[in-house]
Amino acid sequence: MGGSEHEILRIEPGGPSWPPRLMEIDGVPEFLWLRGDERALSKARLVAIVGSRSPTPYGLDQARLFATTLAAAGVVVVSGLARGIDAAAHAGALDAGGETIAVLGCGVDRPWPKGTVTERVLAEGLLMSEHPPGSDPRPHHFPLRNRLISGLSDGVVIIEAAARSGSLITARWAADQGREVFALPGRVDQAMSRGAHRLLREGASLVEDPGEVLAELYGSRLDGSSNPTSETVLISGDKVLEELARADLTIDELSAATGLEVRTLLARLVEEELSGLVTRAPGGIYRLVKRRAREGP
Amino acid sequence: MGGSEHEILRIEPGGPSWPPRLMEIDGVPEFLWLRGDERALSKARLVAIVGSRSPTPYGLDQARLFATTLAAAGVVVVSGLARGIDAAAHAGALDAGGETIAVLGCGVDRPWPKGTVTERVLAEGLLMSEHPPGSDPRPHHFPLRNRLISGLSDGVVIIEAAARSGSLITARWAADQGREVFALPGRVDQAMSRGAHRLLREGASLVEDPGEVLAELYGSRLDGSSNPTSETVLISGDKVLEELARADLTIDELSAATGLEVRTLLARLVEEELSGLVTRAPGGIYRLVKRRAREGP
Repeated sequence: MGGSEHEILRIEPGGPSWPPRLMEIDGVPEFLWLRGDERALSKARLVAIVGSRSPTPYGLDQARLFATTLAAAGVVVVSGLARGIDAAAHAGALDAGGETIAVLGCGVDRPWPKGTVTERVLAEGLLMSEHPPGSDPRPHHFPLRNRLISGLSDGVVIIEAAARSGSLITARWAADQGREVFALPGRVDQAMSRGAHRLLREGASLVEDPGEVLAELYGSRLDGSSNPTSETVLISGDKVLEELARADLTIDELSAATGLEVRTLLARLVEEELSGLVTRAPGGIYRLVKRRAREGP
Repeated sequence: MGGSEHEILRIEPGGPSWPPRLMEIDGVPEFLWLRGDERALSKARLVAIVGSRSPTPYGLDQARLFATTLAAAGVVVVSGLARGIDAAAHAGALDAGGETIAVLGCGVDRPWPKGTVTERVLAEGLLMSEHPPGSDPRPHHFPLRNRLISGLSDGVVIIEAAARSGSLITARWAADQGREVFALPGRVDQAMSRGAHRLLREGASLVEDPGEVLAELYGSRLDGSSNPTSETVLISGDKVLEELARADLTIDELSAATGLEVRTLLARLVEEELSGLVTRAPGGIYRLVKRRAREGP
């Protein structure tokens, strides 16, 4: 049952429509007001995409790409309805025929800012707020509102953000709430890259494409240990790999076993490490690893 | 004493000109051949800048910026003389009136590729190789040559690199040798960003400007615990910070002490965490931290 454009639903913790993820967070809201199709709230997969109100064209393109790809994969896109990255995320999700939730810092009866995206989310998505109808947007509402954006979601993608930015507050909430934080890098000569780079320094997951978000949160479609024969083909006829297939060896043992110089072996092994075929364990012991269809991060 | 353009010096491990850092590495070369001003080898500060042979304009700009800034700060810039990022690094160092070392995969009598930058490094810098004069550049020389680029240096900066690239081999050597690895992020829609992003996922230090390299390797000029009065000014008159100045507190204790709602406090504290004034210790204990002149990574 979806609500009409003008119908407003008030829900409370523990009730049937209350999103289970919002029971886990610090500062559970007293109520939530919903306007739109509240079924989006009960979907299994929700991801927030947030970022700057003054993005670069690159940031806008990426926000749109992430939103459309995630929405097409059945993920509900959560954001804050702000201009810039948030608006691109909502619009991208709807363009892909997907669902989107806008969490507001004001009453759901007066979504802000006004504009095409707001109209579309009102018609096709869900507006949500912990502030009762009639509430104006106030500056101190926004940092708190951000805990609901992250709290609702399995992970948060930060596309572009200035050095000090509300998006970083969302990311901090996400980390506090045990949600995955993804940050998209950009050019260092763009101020709008500062925030995401700061998050990357602090341990956020670097993300280059939306497939990585899906893989990380919901399991990789590429993660197959399905084809063990390819490594046999590779190894056969190669002295170094053949020796490592027999046993884990130090560089000196490998040199003795193959007759190759240590220097030559080091160059070779560093290349195999890069390709993911060989790994070096503590103590300088080289080991053949299962060849993966996709190299991990 | 600087050698002339055509004089070639052969040095060996343990000799007076042998760079001490090259005694520490796996695969110490039997000899090194030098051509140019070998005094660069004995300088205290050496940093490698390497990257793609097919960089974007952004990569070239950044290579040049890093090289000129580091060279102007007295750092010898080490690279591999390849076209693209390497050439920009050598040229930038020389333009700044600094020193540069090119480590070759062929004899120093036949530096390769030919071109303006090679001529300039020959005239104003130092060429170095473990291959005797007369040696041709051969593909298997380059991965090994890369261990000398990193081995000579205190740190390696990777500016742009394809997903599989010689620069990644240099970075791997650097990590093996205990050298700092810095990677410059870029746009995710540029193939030339893949290598640096891969290194960032693997734990390389994200670097946005050359001052960070100087700070990390040689101590920050901004790292002052010099001005403790500023925090007193900030704290005075602020209930939350005043309580935290007295004792480390949980959110509940802080709520009891200040009379503020937990929800309001959470929003406030997450902002103070972002600004670096407050930190959260295990167990959810909030603590006032010394205000730093520069926020750490």
